[in-house]
Amino acid sequence: VAPAVGRQIPAAAPDERRGTGSAPSRVRVAYQGEPGAYSEAAALGHFGDVRPRGYPTFRDVAERVASGEAERGVLPIENSLAGSILQVYDLLQEFESLHIVGEIRLRVSHHLIGHPGAKLQEVRRVLAHFQAAAQCRRLLEAHPEWTVEPSYDTAGSVKLAKERGRRDEAAIASARAAEVYGMAVLAEAVEDDPQNYTRFVVVSREPRADGRGTKTSLLYTTRNEPGALCATLQVFSKRGLNLARIESRPIAGRPWEYRFYVDVEGRVGSVRLDSALAELRGLVEQLRLLGCYPGA
Amino acid sequence: VAPAVGRQIPAAAPDERRGTGSAPSRVRVAYQGEPGAYSEAAALGHFGDVRPRGYPTFRDVAERVASGEAERGVLPIENSLAGSILQVYDLLQEFESLHIVGEIRLRVSHHLIGHPGAKLQEVRRVLAHFQAAAQCRRLLEAHPEWTVEPSYDTAGSVKLAKERGRRDEAAIASARAAEVYGMAVLAEAVEDDPQNYTRFVVVSREPRADGRGTKTSLLYTTRNEPGALCATLQVFSKRGLNLARIESRPIAGRPWEYRFYVDVEGRVGSVRLDSALAELRGLVEQLRLLGCYPGA
Repeated sequence: VAPAVGRQIPAAAPDERRGTGSAPSRVRVAYQGEPGAYSEAAALGHFGDVRPRGYPTFRDVAERVASGEAERGVLPIENSLAGSILQVYDLLQEFESLHIVGEIRLRVSHHLIGHPGAKLQEVRRVLAHFQAAAQCRRLLEAHPEWTVEPSYDTAGSVKLAKERGRRDEAAIASARAAEVYGMAVLAEAVEDDPQNYTRFVVVSREPRADGRGTKTSLLYTTRNEPGALCATLQVFSKRGLNLARIESRPIAGRPWEYRFYVDVEGRVGSVRLDSALAELRGLVEQLRLLGCYPGA
Repeated sequence: VAPAVGRQIPAAAPDERRGTGSAPSRVRVAYQGEPGAYSEAAALGHFGDVRPRGYPTFRDVAERVASGEAERGVLPIENSLAGSILQVYDLLQEFESLHIVGEIRLRVSHHLIGHPGAKLQEVRRVLAHFQAAAQCRRLLEAHPEWTVEPSYDTAGSVKLAKERGRRDEAAIASARAAEVYGMAVLAEAVEDDPQNYTRFVVVSREPRADGRGTKTSLLYTTRNEPGALCATLQVFSKRGLNLARIESRPIAGRPWEYRFYVDVEGRVGSVRLDSALAELRGLVEQLRLLGCYPGA
């Protein structure tokens, strides 16, 4: 069986679906949001028919996995239009017991969703998640007559618009969210660019041990001296190991110092990556292996 | 007179205050937010008594400066707890006529602001700007009985709480915002860490030409090949030029490719920086000099 984790919404991921002999009441997969959320779609596509359960916040998802209440968590980490989801980067640092065991790429298409029978011209208020608003800036800018109301969830904003029952209100979310809540699509594919993908990480309390990883995620702080960051990156480039991503986040209490998140195309257990890690250890203040997993 | 731009809220910035012979009706300094916003405090501290004018969005500020309607714009670009303000990075890329001519660091202390006479125990709903919420996570997590309502402006959320007149509502903002709107501080200094600073950039249609810069901001895209980013950073490290900051943002339509924002401690016109720029030009796809200015 081919490893499913490397494909873009694989039909099934056998090695992931086998389960770990847990009681039936245990949550298989936790995600943030209401039914119809993009995270739910990512979880369904990756794990198959496991009834993922939604939680209000990213932190809730991290906590459930860290406590063992949920086996896996699916967290969005980056969107190809709006960029990094900084809060998820911070949670990976905070929850030291979490490991990245997989990666999912999901094509994201947003729609303007309103009440059945309502017309686009009637809309005066749009409920929009921050990330969704950032990915649909052109639409929102083309309608200065709309008031944009920030929300914390795409599908949740459709649910809220439904509950409020005002024909002049709409929300930005997936077509599936419209279905789930019995609402209508007023405008289709309203994202700024059709090349709109969100990348999710799958987290678990146990690191992946099947040796199938192709991508390795690291978290480290450099010594506070000139050239320190560059020296750490050279460790990889001189071995021909490509960096897929570099992200930095501030360190609380140490203004203008940063922790770096680096994704390297390489496998823990291979000579090249292991020797790079050994050299890196001598250059950095703190180093954590976040996980080695099949890159999507 | 010492250059004022390098200090942390200087009393006056003579070279910046001289003006450019504009009509009296022209806006001297534009910022995002309502009176009492941190951006207003940054503008007042940097420029002195120039009556900065607030606009609803960061984009409004960029547009006013690009059109010449405002002489300078003050935009927050990074907070030492919450990290980069990604939207401002994107505006610097989009508005090619803007130049960074200065930098401001402001100590930010948040307070929970409610109605005069209201008690902390009465609070049930808190209006919080995304950034402010991110900087006061511990307070919000310690009060699960509060509903957090997202808002787009700190001082604006105090204004809104005032207008609504509900004793069980409060907002997170500056002490000055409480004063401006006749509201009361219910809890002081509620940020997660006292080392909380926001860094602002000052933008203008004209680059700085006084040769007083100490910091240079660059924007570039690398060729899509292994080691490309690392090669660009080595250009600086091998000349002993320190990187103050590196940030990356996605390129629309090219998923998983990035543009890089790099702040270098060095001056345009110096032999070291100019030779680094010459070498860099040969390595990158596109290179834009965002500005050279006195680092704060």
